[in-house]
Amino acid sequence: MSAQILDGTAVSRSLLESTAERARAFTDNTGRKPTLATVLVGDDPASQTYVRMKRSRCERVGLSSRAVELPADTSTDRLVEEVSALSSDASVDGILLQHPVPAHIDERAAFEAIAPGKDVDGVTMHSFAAMAFGEAGFHSCTPGGILRLLDAYEVPLSGKRAVVVGRSPILGKPVGMLLLARDATVTYCHSRTADLAAAVREADVVVAAVGKAELVRGEWIKPGAVVVDAGYNPGNVGDVEYAAAAERAGYITPVPGGVGPMTIALLLEQTVQAAEAKA
Amino acid sequence: MSAQILDGTAVSRSLLESTAERARAFTDNTGRKPTLATVLVGDDPASQTYVRMKRSRCERVGLSSRAVELPADTSTDRLVEEVSALSSDASVDGILLQHPVPAHIDERAAFEAIAPGKDVDGVTMHSFAAMAFGEAGFHSCTPGGILRLLDAYEVPLSGKRAVVVGRSPILGKPVGMLLLARDATVTYCHSRTADLAAAVREADVVVAAVGKAELVRGEWIKPGAVVVDAGYNPGNVGDVEYAAAAERAGYITPVPGGVGPMTIALLLEQTVQAAEAKA
Repeated sequence: MSAQILDGTAVSRSLLESTAERARAFTDNTGRKPTLATVLVGDDPASQTYVRMKRSRCERVGLSSRAVELPADTSTDRLVEEVSALSSDASVDGILLQHPVPAHIDERAAFEAIAPGKDVDGVTMHSFAAMAFGEAGFHSCTPGGILRLLDAYEVPLSGKRAVVVGRSPILGKPVGMLLLARDATVTYCHSRTADLAAAVREADVVVAAVGKAELVRGEWIKPGAVVVDAGYNPGNVGDVEYAAAAERAGYITPVPGGVGPMTIALLLEQTVQAAEAKA
Repeated sequence: MSAQILDGTAVSRSLLESTAERARAFTDNTGRKPTLATVLVGDDPASQTYVRMKRSRCERVGLSSRAVELPADTSTDRLVEEVSALSSDASVDGILLQHPVPAHIDERAAFEAIAPGKDVDGVTMHSFAAMAFGEAGFHSCTPGGILRLLDAYEVPLSGKRAVVVGRSPILGKPVGMLLLARDATVTYCHSRTADLAAAVREADVVVAAVGKAELVRGEWIKPGAVVVDAGYNPGNVGDVEYAAAAERAGYITPVPGGVGPMTIALLLEQTVQAAEAKA
């Protein structure tokens, strides 16, 4: 393999260290820890694991977390009520509503109940528009984490052709907007794209964000391209055919140990930032 | 020339007719006309002309308009106050803040003072995110008008490669999101794009939205492509080299008489829609 690894574990470590320092200073100054409220609806094992990881990471960095757990048959109204209560609770700095919620719930309505100043996971419409327009606001954590990882390796983006595979509201769409803000020429591909291979072949930077195991084939990667795999599929498999892509890429994120650790680190950093902004 | 003309004047006429009918029904039911407030800051002649056109079109369609005119040295705070007053004035259904405002004003702050339910020009962060996420909301008028024009000619978009040249918050960015919502594979190009010609050559649909006379050359157009020129430059010149592009394109918008009339028609339709939603 020729590609240099974009080591999210290593880069996130230094981000977590600076976050821990800021959390300590905040706690010294205010007498309370920056606090993340996590909201989990239902009993999906993967979601439970994600929330548990985020909470345990909070503790290790000196943040406090508060877990709200709701049954799978929670109504939209009830969830909106819970989230709204956290939005107006002065002891809560950031709110994470674990995605996805059960299908009968209007997830958008629940996300929008998060006050913009507490949207540390960057899921509200306000945060999205702020990313797109370059206004102040929180970044969606995975997209923001990806940019931080690329920056740590000084990957040039201006004028480069970036191809984003996927267009979800919390991953594909915002990462494209962040790349566009950095002056990349950005193409959004998705399930209806007629010739995905052709689009990827042109890319200097590829971000795979669909959740389909090895959808992006190694032979599609332009030699020297930067490959970011934001997919996570059963069996520690990403959205990119890793070994073959690594033969051709200039840089590549491993799965796991690439995008994932950056996502959590950004969540915690933004929680501290939210606390500081309130103080 | 071989291209079929996308005749915005003709298509807007039928849109204005249906809007006039809805306005009449609204007026019969409520005893008042749907009302658009226009806000003009400073004395830029082009902006004055645009506002005058929009107001006169309101009258012809049976809407009422209210003109707010502010001096060029208006502060951001003062403008925000004016717009906020219109937002809470029950006799105003829609608000148009003519872009651009003088450079010393924070235009974004002024736009955000428009209540989402009155954002009939589709300039707020909320409206942008709603377009991107497929949520209910008003469309930015030029992007929304472009989509209506393409629909009138039944131009297929799903799976097509669309290239948007320009990334402004009220034109390039939202039109890309609307095309993406219609399952096009969307590329955003801009001043930092390394090879604009190469990107345009791949496009089944080109939307030029930068305001640079004839930036998009005719020879770049893929034979049969759909060319939408949302640029308007002095001397009735668009962003596309018209005659040469029309030789190759399948469909093309003229300047004037293409995108412009659709923009105004959508503004009026959305004003009536806002009035109906309140009633």
